[in-house]
Amino acid sequence: MAEALRIGLAGLGNVGAGVFKLLEEHSELMASRCGRSLEVVAVSARDRSRDRGFDFTNARWCDDPRSLAEDGNIDVVVELIGGSDGVALQLVEDALASGKNVVTANKAMLALHGTRLASKAEESGVGLAYEAAVAGGIPIVKSLREGLAGNRIERVYGILNGTCNYILTAMEESGREFDDVLSEAQSLGYAEADPSFDIDGIDAAHKLALLTSLAFGRFVEFDTVYTEGIRQVGAIDIDFARELGFRIKLLAIARATANGIEQRVHPCLISTDTPIAHVQGVFNAVVAEGDYVDRTMYEGRGAGEGPTASAVVADLVDLARGDLLPTFGVPVQKLESTPSATMEEHESAYYVRLMVVDKPGVMADVAAILRDENVSLESVLQRGRDPGEVVPVILTTHVTVEAGMRRALQQIGELELVVESPLMIRVEDL
Amino acid sequence: MAEALRIGLAGLGNVGAGVFKLLEEHSELMASRCGRSLEVVAVSARDRSRDRGFDFTNARWCDDPRSLAEDGNIDVVVELIGGSDGVALQLVEDALASGKNVVTANKAMLALHGTRLASKAEESGVGLAYEAAVAGGIPIVKSLREGLAGNRIERVYGILNGTCNYILTAMEESGREFDDVLSEAQSLGYAEADPSFDIDGIDAAHKLALLTSLAFGRFVEFDTVYTEGIRQVGAIDIDFARELGFRIKLLAIARATANGIEQRVHPCLISTDTPIAHVQGVFNAVVAEGDYVDRTMYEGRGAGEGPTASAVVADLVDLARGDLLPTFGVPVQKLESTPSATMEEHESAYYVRLMVVDKPGVMADVAAILRDENVSLESVLQRGRDPGEVVPVILTTHVTVEAGMRRALQQIGELELVVESPLMIRVEDL
Repeated sequence: MAEALRIGLAGLGNVGAGVFKLLEEHSELMASRCGRSLEVVAVSARDRSRDRGFDFTNARWCDDPRSLAEDGNIDVVVELIGGSDGVALQLVEDALASGKNVVTANKAMLALHGTRLASKAEESGVGLAYEAAVAGGIPIVKSLREGLAGNRIERVYGILNGTCNYILTAMEESGREFDDVLSEAQSLGYAEADPSFDIDGIDAAHKLALLTSLAFGRFVEFDTVYTEGIRQVGAIDIDFARELGFRIKLLAIARATANGIEQRVHPCLISTDTPIAHVQGVFNAVVAEGDYVDRTMYEGRGAGEGPTASAVVADLVDLARGDLLPTFGVPVQKLESTPSATMEEHESAYYVRLMVVDKPGVMADVAAILRDENVSLESVLQRGRDPGEVVPVILTTHVTVEAGMRRALQQIGELELVVESPLMIRVEDL
Repeated sequence: MAEALRIGLAGLGNVGAGVFKLLEEHSELMASRCGRSLEVVAVSARDRSRDRGFDFTNARWCDDPRSLAEDGNIDVVVELIGGSDGVALQLVEDALASGKNVVTANKAMLALHGTRLASKAEESGVGLAYEAAVAGGIPIVKSLREGLAGNRIERVYGILNGTCNYILTAMEESGREFDDVLSEAQSLGYAEADPSFDIDGIDAAHKLALLTSLAFGRFVEFDTVYTEGIRQVGAIDIDFARELGFRIKLLAIARATANGIEQRVHPCLISTDTPIAHVQGVFNAVVAEGDYVDRTMYEGRGAGEGPTASAVVADLVDLARGDLLPTFGVPVQKLESTPSATMEEHESAYYVRLMVVDKPGVMADVAAILRDENVSLESVLQRGRDPGEVVPVILTTHVTVEAGMRRALQQIGELELVVESPLMIRVEDL
């Protein structure tokens, strides 16, 4: 048998512990699958004394994770520290510079520095692997980079944040409001104390930036990802959506359009007839559409100790087997810098919720504004009547250009009888 | 750039033509992804003169496909001839023996000869790749062998035959009977003139045998796959299943049990709450459950020119990139020969349809027989009454051992008032 793959593991939180346990529990299986053993020879974490429920005394302890990068007895550094910059970035840069392979679950770091780090990996002739960074339990990086490599990818989209999907599912099943469900998710550990990264769509946007590069062979470009979260979605919207045959999901979508590459994260109304509408709770899913393969869908757990450890180890198995691929599927110099499409140019159908005072005439004003912006209405729903009081009115439109839609909503929001800013949710044609 | 990967393509039917077109259309993209070009240097098919809608005059024509195996200028032989034995098998054996990589879509050949061919590939140090053999559009071989390589797989199951899924979906949507929908499927080209391979479950069983080996690191063992098709499923069963909260799907299931590895293909009642229940029409799906990753699901088109070509080319891309893995995930000498569990030992809940003469007393006899075989009833459904006439009675049972269930049904079938052999469909707990 060939020599062991020697691993330096930085970060011993849930995921790090999961990787350690998996490699111990399945050491024989891994050796048989790789033709060599996978051995954690050094570990680093903030607090050595914490009881993690397993014994890592056979591995060298490093107080400073960066010393893993310098260790001549390490083949791969596994970075599970997190954070887009700081220690994690430093460690990864040093490891790549010193000719070590890197496996990371750090989507934020790759979304911001991915292209540069990929260059560094190439210069050193090592791998930079990150299956765990996007939809942990789903081998989507491998599927895009290898399994679908025969295709020109036309669109890739997914449910990339389990917290949001859990909240939206729970709202739908219980009829409760966002804040209420969020609190519950926090107490169950499905949402962070500061939930902004998840519920404002930032985490999904980080992941989308990586999927876009993989799918379209393009530089990683996080700052052009249009990002909108789920705070505005009300129980009433989920209810109206159901009545119209839709579910509301936070989707991350990348698509090649005539105006360039579109990258966007926002709540969507999607038909309950489409497979991804049935991905509920903390599950993630990704749909990739290729010109030869047509639609493919991948579903699994997006986070958690086990699924993320599974993804990290899959990368280690690849490295142990000697499979070394360009980070984003093609060498960095071949990555394209196709333009980014703007949201103003985006075309979609829209769901709009207006809170209006129930008085004759308000719909005439709304309809006139939409007409003047060339927005064609598909349906208008008002449930019940309550003269003189505030009632919700739901509009759905045919496909129209977003710039016009936004101008119309701006004007509608200024009408005297419209008492809140209109809520707009895109109706996604999947 | 490295030298081209030189391909010999045997079989120019739909899939072969698709591979040829894909490689032409995406030649630049493939070169950029592989770091070398993928070049079809020789082709072989039965009829040279047939117009296939594309120009293969740049490739050398071979009347005898086996000459591809001898050609020193070929790196990979792509076998798309089909058939478990005969020319296809001969070509693959010769190609492997002469040190050429082989890519094939031939599930029947691999189900019957897979272990032996894998040995041959290993002896010659070449690859035997077959992504296209199982669920064409879904990179499931790669996912099991690489993406989920960190896991011990506990169960793998799927909808592996698009024809059956199309028929069952159409029966559900239209309320029509099997024969009627089959004829339509044949006229639409979704079913063969001789549909037995598909509708009797044989095609799915071939594919399952390969998934089992990949998932459990086990010799390919087709002859112990329990196989039952969908001919017996009536519109009435689909209807009753819906009433009970289920859909009927032909599933192929491999599972590690206390009695050994279970491999079975048969119609199942599955809850409409489970994701695979929403895989409709010609789509295929595979669910793989690993001890760390938990449940993952993969969905896509199972057949057709484009998806199958996509899978063949994915294998070619792997070979061009130098990724060479053991055929079934571990070297042949490490494949296990864990025992096969028998269906008599199988435990399941059951759906049973009896056609009985509507007279008092018949249910008392049925219930007594079930009691004597230790089968516990969960529900009994009889819609409407028609004294003296034949009516369907639906039973569902709690989980029980299949041997007892079969004995009970044998006795029930012999009752005077039971006019047809009872129909039994397993209720699968997913």
